[in-house]
Amino acid sequence: MVNQQFATAVHVLTALACNKKELMNSDSLATSVNTNPVVIRRLLSLLTKAKLVNTVRGKSGGVKLAKEASQINLKDIYLALSPTESIAPRDKTPHKECAVSCAMHSIMSTVAEGTQKATLKYLETQKLSDLSKKVSRANA
Amino acid sequence: MVNQQFATAVHVLTALACNKKELMNSDSLATSVNTNPVVIRRLLSLLTKAKLVNTVRGKSGGVKLAKEASQINLKDIYLALSPTESIAPRDKTPHKECAVSCAMHSIMSTVAEGTQKATLKYLETQKLSDLSKKVSRANA
Repeated sequence: MVNQQFATAVHVLTALACNKKELMNSDSLATSVNTNPVVIRRLLSLLTKAKLVNTVRGKSGGVKLAKEASQINLKDIYLALSPTESIAPRDKTPHKECAVSCAMHSIMSTVAEGTQKATLKYLETQKLSDLSKKVSRANA
Repeated sequence: MVNQQFATAVHVLTALACNKKELMNSDSLATSVNTNPVVIRRLLSLLTKAKLVNTVRGKSGGVKLAKEASQINLKDIYLALSPTESIAPRDKTPHKECAVSCAMHSIMSTVAEGTQKATLKYLETQKLSDLSKKVSRANA
């Protein structure tokens, strides 16, 4: 499920932000997230492509943030996963003789775009560094 | 899929808005939407509960909008379907010894709430009457 993937990605990146410069491997991240390391590795591959994490290969290798946590926001993470939107036009062929049916794809595309824009605008305000501060405060 | 259901609901209600006071049955709505009448009837049941449509029973029965199209917005429709959000906290048990894991559910709940608020705020600006006007313009 996509929503789980976004939450998992935010969790992983927050863990890396809290660990500062230290490398973490997929096993320790999987323990923190309470999931399978395979899920984490698949996710790290997407986050690497989006230039949010860097991988150091080798026995004592692992991953770390590719930039400062204050330079990463939730919009970056969301876009890295290209998730299925909860609002999208239908993918069926319109009924040619129905005016509503013919206009609907364009109308719903506009609605989907507007919704995504609103979502991304909010996510952009949420910095990864704010999330890691919340973890510190919750455990103070 | 939830996104299809929202798009289908918007389609159905736009069709009813375009048909003004005339009753439409699930068969004609299904033809317009290009889906099975069963899908439409299931949807109409949710839209009836949300007081967006009224059903007239009987042989020549059907459904119509329960209020003016200008009094219905896409937020009303979205809430009527209580869809799965694309951003939500993970439902797994946190790893008790991990500070990030313990704080994550609360953090992601806040993010999910913020995202939903942004989405609903946008959907509230989109009136059903605007959508039916777009249909008329597209077919003028």
